[in-house]
Amino acid sequence: MNPDQKPGDVTLADLPIRDDLRGMSPYGAPQIDVPVRLNTNENPYPPSPELVADLAEEVRGQAGELNRYPDRDALALRADLAGYLGHGLSTERVWAANGSNEVLQQILQAFGGPGRTAIGFEPSYSMHPIITGGTSTEWIRASREDDFSLDPGKAVAAIEEHRPDVVFLTSPNNPTGTAQPLPVIEAVVEAAPGMVVVDEAYFEFAREGTPSALTLLPEHPRLIVTRTMSKAFAMAGTRLGYLAAHPAVIEALLLVRLPYHLSTLTQAAARVALRHRAELLGTVDALRRERDDTVAWLRAKGLRVADSDANFVLFGRFPDRRAVWEGLLERGVLIREVGPPEWLRVSIGTGEEMAAFRAALEGVL
Amino acid sequence: MNPDQKPGDVTLADLPIRDDLRGMSPYGAPQIDVPVRLNTNENPYPPSPELVADLAEEVRGQAGELNRYPDRDALALRADLAGYLGHGLSTERVWAANGSNEVLQQILQAFGGPGRTAIGFEPSYSMHPIITGGTSTEWIRASREDDFSLDPGKAVAAIEEHRPDVVFLTSPNNPTGTAQPLPVIEAVVEAAPGMVVVDEAYFEFAREGTPSALTLLPEHPRLIVTRTMSKAFAMAGTRLGYLAAHPAVIEALLLVRLPYHLSTLTQAAARVALRHRAELLGTVDALRRERDDTVAWLRAKGLRVADSDANFVLFGRFPDRRAVWEGLLERGVLIREVGPPEWLRVSIGTGEEMAAFRAALEGVL
Repeated sequence: MNPDQKPGDVTLADLPIRDDLRGMSPYGAPQIDVPVRLNTNENPYPPSPELVADLAEEVRGQAGELNRYPDRDALALRADLAGYLGHGLSTERVWAANGSNEVLQQILQAFGGPGRTAIGFEPSYSMHPIITGGTSTEWIRASREDDFSLDPGKAVAAIEEHRPDVVFLTSPNNPTGTAQPLPVIEAVVEAAPGMVVVDEAYFEFAREGTPSALTLLPEHPRLIVTRTMSKAFAMAGTRLGYLAAHPAVIEALLLVRLPYHLSTLTQAAARVALRHRAELLGTVDALRRERDDTVAWLRAKGLRVADSDANFVLFGRFPDRRAVWEGLLERGVLIREVGPPEWLRVSIGTGEEMAAFRAALEGVL
Repeated sequence: MNPDQKPGDVTLADLPIRDDLRGMSPYGAPQIDVPVRLNTNENPYPPSPELVADLAEEVRGQAGELNRYPDRDALALRADLAGYLGHGLSTERVWAANGSNEVLQQILQAFGGPGRTAIGFEPSYSMHPIITGGTSTEWIRASREDDFSLDPGKAVAAIEEHRPDVVFLTSPNNPTGTAQPLPVIEAVVEAAPGMVVVDEAYFEFAREGTPSALTLLPEHPRLIVTRTMSKAFAMAGTRLGYLAAHPAVIEALLLVRLPYHLSTLTQAAARVALRHRAELLGTVDALRRERDDTVAWLRAKGLRVADSDANFVLFGRFPDRRAVWEGLLERGVLIREVGPPEWLRVSIGTGEEMAAFRAALEGVL
């Protein structure tokens, strides 16, 4: 900083930020107020009046102790999450934080860091490399096949070549929607010298019979399966991510978590949502049907569409995808310009919202 | 990890955690359920029934949109916080996160990191070096005087010697209670080559007329003043930390914050608390009086007591402080074994709680 510079003239470039942040832009989809928001894979179904009333009463019951710190280890919530996940899990095998972003950051703070590496198979969730960089872990970019699947032989070869400290898998993958067959995950876990994270943020939307990586946990103490309440549970505003792993992994996370990271209100709201899970997860079937209809409709229009096990669909290819994205926005439909070039991602909304999307896209094409 | 090891036999030591975490224990005061909890500097006064009802209604009003992500930049909350702080601050000069722990972590992620250093003057808040290490920033330990004050000449000399990227000051300091005179802060800001963080978590408890480092912000774009709603605002369970700084500093933090880090409920609860600030901050006077009485009583008992501008008091010296801590716990009073050897810290509770503390301490001594 120039010592003669006036405070009012100082810009970000004048501040001593970390070198690897210079020139970067903040992450995030544009938050634009339009009639049809299909850009951040939110669940379009709001909580019922019954859930809202139950939550307000729960807050009324607990707010009288808000002068006290929350349960630092969120034991009751973790027990409830374990009960939801099943697979013989219990409190000491489950962990929770403010969104799966914070869960992933804690994993990298414990098992990554300077001089360590993490690998992911792209295109995939764009926050994985960002959170990796935020913990000064080096990101290694490996690739998926042209159909966005993962070839187990190539995945294992990449792991053997790079010996990463952390491997990121995704099932279903974002932004492509592809679920990961269990044998691929198993091959990767067997080959990996360090930790393997299977990000199952969208797992509840997978087609019937798709097995969860949770089934592999009993045999694999270096496997971590992450989930979120933002998608199928329709609780994006609550910010609750969680994971299941060997109890020793949870002990490692306790060393890096900021004390009292999870507020009393977050713990309470997540527990209320879990009590209402029949209602919340009841939206999943409707979204799956809408998704499958969207895939079929887009294919009937002659577009390429990735198979989807999630609540979004990746479609293309558009030599000028920005023009298509803008055309939809002009018609009041916000989708996401993300993933490989020439592709766009649309989140699955209500039947009405998807009709608006289809009408808008017909107008654009 | 031994490949023949059974998953059930795996312990933390078998996992590939970061080397600097090996052998560490999780941070945190014991969460013990006793009648009188004076260990984590909580405000003993619970929110009023009016505030609780207002919060429950606010949650009822907003919960219908919990399927949507929160405002990623928390603009309305930041505007309210700026209004509370005054000093001509506005939204673009204020930032908020899940507790001041997360605020501090974001500062270090932006301005610290591998190959960079942060300095603090000990004894001070024990989370500063922990969060520093968690971001792979090197911690430099400087010292306070025997009376826990900071000598400006020595502080400047330490900064000129080490050229740290981040300097931590505290006013009032935890666990000693000492407020920082403004000229010391100014001397440090002038000398520091990087960012200076003044942690004012306990500022509202300072004696009348104590100036805030906020008054220095207009002239110092590398100064950051952090605050929390956990103490004077009696909202520890809400987990809301915040800071004021030059707008370019906020831009830097946007590069490292996890997207949607602050939930809809946290933003709403903090705004409700700010609306009720007359009530919440009304507890500060009672706590100050109780603090001053506690200091006087302890000194009358012949004990050494640090001057306190906070809602806690550091007192000693006890060759076996653990025995005193345990003796109090046996009598139902939980205080904190923290800070320099031979000293103990008691948080200021209600008049009733402090009477219980005095009776228990008389029993122990």
